[in-house]
Amino acid sequence: MSHRKLRTIEMNRLSIEEFHDAEKLPLIVVLDDVRSMYNVGSVFRTCDAFRVKAIYLCGITATPPHPEIHKTALGAEDAVQWRYFATADEAVEELHREGCFVYSVEQVENSTKLNQLTKDNSQLTIDNRQLRGKAIDGNSIAVVFGNEVKGVHQSVVDASDGCLEIPQFGTKHSMNVSVTAGIVIWEFARTMNFF
Amino acid sequence: MSHRKLRTIEMNRLSIEEFHDAEKLPLIVVLDDVRSMYNVGSVFRTCDAFRVKAIYLCGITATPPHPEIHKTALGAEDAVQWRYFATADEAVEELHREGCFVYSVEQVENSTKLNQLTKDNSQLTIDNRQLRGKAIDGNSIAVVFGNEVKGVHQSVVDASDGCLEIPQFGTKHSMNVSVTAGIVIWEFARTMNFF
Repeated sequence: MSHRKLRTIEMNRLSIEEFHDAEKLPLIVVLDDVRSMYNVGSVFRTCDAFRVKAIYLCGITATPPHPEIHKTALGAEDAVQWRYFATADEAVEELHREGCFVYSVEQVENSTKLNQLTKDNSQLTIDNRQLRGKAIDGNSIAVVFGNEVKGVHQSVVDASDGCLEIPQFGTKHSMNVSVTAGIVIWEFARTMNFF
Repeated sequence: MSHRKLRTIEMNRLSIEEFHDAEKLPLIVVLDDVRSMYNVGSVFRTCDAFRVKAIYLCGITATPPHPEIHKTALGAEDAVQWRYFATADEAVEELHREGCFVYSVEQVENSTKLNQLTKDNSQLTIDNRQLRGKAIDGNSIAVVFGNEVKGVHQSVVDASDGCLEIPQFGTKHSMNVSVTAGIVIWEFARTMNFF
């Protein structure tokens, strides 16, 4: 069976206009004080690949346009919608006003392990949101990723509706934030049947 | 429900000795001409997290010890077993001699989409290996990741037993190699029921 490598022209890549019009994965990615612009750019590239709805850049997280973001985003920063918030706390407040269910990605007590994410808790949690008494804007979920050293602020963790944790089995229990975001976004795309 | 962040001491991290003695994910990660030492370090960190059996570093891929690998591996390069090969072709030959089933991760004709990976094709493919007429060393699978620009060499793709592709839906169809490796390693750990 031939495994000829595809040429770029064969990959059915969307134009930026087609991207803007296309159905999105109902997921919003929040970056809370992410220091490295390479990580920010890499997250943009992953969010482009899985057509994530939006990226919320918070605190010290740099915003496009910036040459160092571009170096790893390679233009994905022009496709994926983004907003800036002075703090991730404000972003979470806004997300709650919009009816989003917010997960922080952190190693905490009583976390939901990412391998336990199912269609039920990736897709909806309608009940949780009705309990919150807030509007529902098409079932969006938000996931917050934190600073490379300090992680997600405890105040943001406390304001979240749940915490997600990637189970780890080695000597470090610390993965690169753009790798972590890639795995989490993939797992939402997979369990939300985006393919 | 309390979501107090865990302290490092509460994370049950393994010592390097415990890591060496622990059961491994039966997966070997092959890096074919990966240029960036940050990517190499990041892959080491992910392989530590999921207790990958070994990393085969090939061609221009840098090897530890190196300060730039350490900057993103953060010590994971001391835990995860690795070997160096002058070319990925030689690594694949050796893997075949050991009875491994080898996947290249590439966008090619007739690829297996990563979301179609099941316990059956992540775990065994015994039949394939028996057809190869080679010894089976405990059901290991190898996955080859290529250069940041050129991908996996066509000769390595041709020598592989199958190709895996992460489906992508955006404007770029190109993710960072350490993010790609993170998603693929996660998906093997998940479908192999390593958790």
